[in-house]
Amino acid sequence: MLTKAPHLFDDATQVTAGDSRWQGKTSADYWAFVGPFGGATAATILRALIDHPERSGDPLSLTINFCAPIAEGAFDLDVRLVKANRSSQHWCVELTQGGGEVATLATAVFAERRPSWSHQPVERPPATPFEQIQPFPKIKPTWANQYDFRFAEGYPDFSGAKKDAVPASAYSKLWIADRVPRKIDALSLMSMSDAFFGRVFHARRELMPFGTVSITTYFHADADDLVAEDITRVLAVADAKIFHKSYGDQNGELWSPNGCLLATTTQIAYFKA
Amino acid sequence: MLTKAPHLFDDATQVTAGDSRWQGKTSADYWAFVGPFGGATAATILRALIDHPERSGDPLSLTINFCAPIAEGAFDLDVRLVKANRSSQHWCVELTQGGGEVATLATAVFAERRPSWSHQPVERPPATPFEQIQPFPKIKPTWANQYDFRFAEGYPDFSGAKKDAVPASAYSKLWIADRVPRKIDALSLMSMSDAFFGRVFHARRELMPFGTVSITTYFHADADDLVAEDITRVLAVADAKIFHKSYGDQNGELWSPNGCLLATTTQIAYFKA
Repeated sequence: MLTKAPHLFDDATQVTAGDSRWQGKTSADYWAFVGPFGGATAATILRALIDHPERSGDPLSLTINFCAPIAEGAFDLDVRLVKANRSSQHWCVELTQGGGEVATLATAVFAERRPSWSHQPVERPPATPFEQIQPFPKIKPTWANQYDFRFAEGYPDFSGAKKDAVPASAYSKLWIADRVPRKIDALSLMSMSDAFFGRVFHARRELMPFGTVSITTYFHADADDLVAEDITRVLAVADAKIFHKSYGDQNGELWSPNGCLLATTTQIAYFKA
Repeated sequence: MLTKAPHLFDDATQVTAGDSRWQGKTSADYWAFVGPFGGATAATILRALIDHPERSGDPLSLTINFCAPIAEGAFDLDVRLVKANRSSQHWCVELTQGGGEVATLATAVFAERRPSWSHQPVERPPATPFEQIQPFPKIKPTWANQYDFRFAEGYPDFSGAKKDAVPASAYSKLWIADRVPRKIDALSLMSMSDAFFGRVFHARRELMPFGTVSITTYFHADADDLVAEDITRVLAVADAKIFHKSYGDQNGELWSPNGCLLATTTQIAYFKA
């Protein structure tokens, strides 16, 4: 009998079913500088919601507030269905460790996506094909090495060599795929929406203390749409509009190679510079 | 002695101090088609947080999930400080009526805005001056009449006359001021960030059943910045990227006339078309 090890992403975002209380754990494979990769935490929270017996519909909106560092190891997810309507659900999730204070606070909306008038005023940005771009090299934070980043624009220069020059563009356009290919689903869209390097790193061309404070992702494709897309990568763009008094913004889009806008995302992040 | 009636906006977003439980009420002056104007609800929640004795710092991020209709009258705000750090606070607010289910669920981040490297890669869009544009006429929902909307681009045509034509642009650029001038603060920024007409109305050139499901606003100016700006209106732009399976997005910016980006906002909304 052939057995197949689960994808590292599915292992990292695994949850143990409870009733209102679920369990997850951090993963050494998706580790950032001082804690777990926020995208993996977000996807774990989303998985607990998707797997919840009372869940109906598809993820429409997910907001994650990163309140405090998450330590290596297990965590609890307190999952609460705040309000259910005929075609939508509102959820609240609190992540705690060892019975302590809340480390992550999330709200989510799920919805039955009914057929409607459909219109996508913007087109997928043009980009050099995935196959024609070199993968971004492996770096220290393990999470980044689980992804195959291929920059079509805004290739990172975080050397600090030009940090006192005129600020560089904060815009990036890149293909994002799991390093070991994995079909794109809502979980990977959530994680990938937090997989952009800090906009301030691009603008200042150097690394510095940085942390996402709050991220919101909207899903524009439901499970049926994603099955129909049948893809293992997205074309992702991100930009920033302001860096001021220690916080900067980011807005991004995740596109299917075929040109469907799958998700839009925005975040506000702390930086020290 | 001269007494001065409070501004209608301050009256509409008034709260009665409690400990963890605050009270607010809907206002006939800020009424939409089937319930209170969401921006007023959002500002009322923000006011309860700003007035809270444990609050420190300025609003950085506010997410409001509209879970169920709010009936005319009083409501309770269950305000909870979920986590406080050295320079930031994470809050959760639940709005209920008559001890019933949650109608609105909000999370907020407050932060002490410390001096830092500052950079605003985008400039304020050019626009015909406020004084040179006619105010948008009064319409049925009272909330809209509390604002002085002056469209520089994307003037609304919701007549339905051209609804079967090629979709119109969802982009709008307009000045927004309180009809009775009021100094711009975080409360009015929050409310104004929900004061755009539905993008789908613009794209389809007609009104239809519509409701914001979730809105997130990031504040890029703190109280000191706003005092220094000393303004009574903003230049506001909004656009949409997709309408699909009964939901559409919106992203917007609120600019000071002097060119500072005060807030960015995004929302996902239900529509029936």
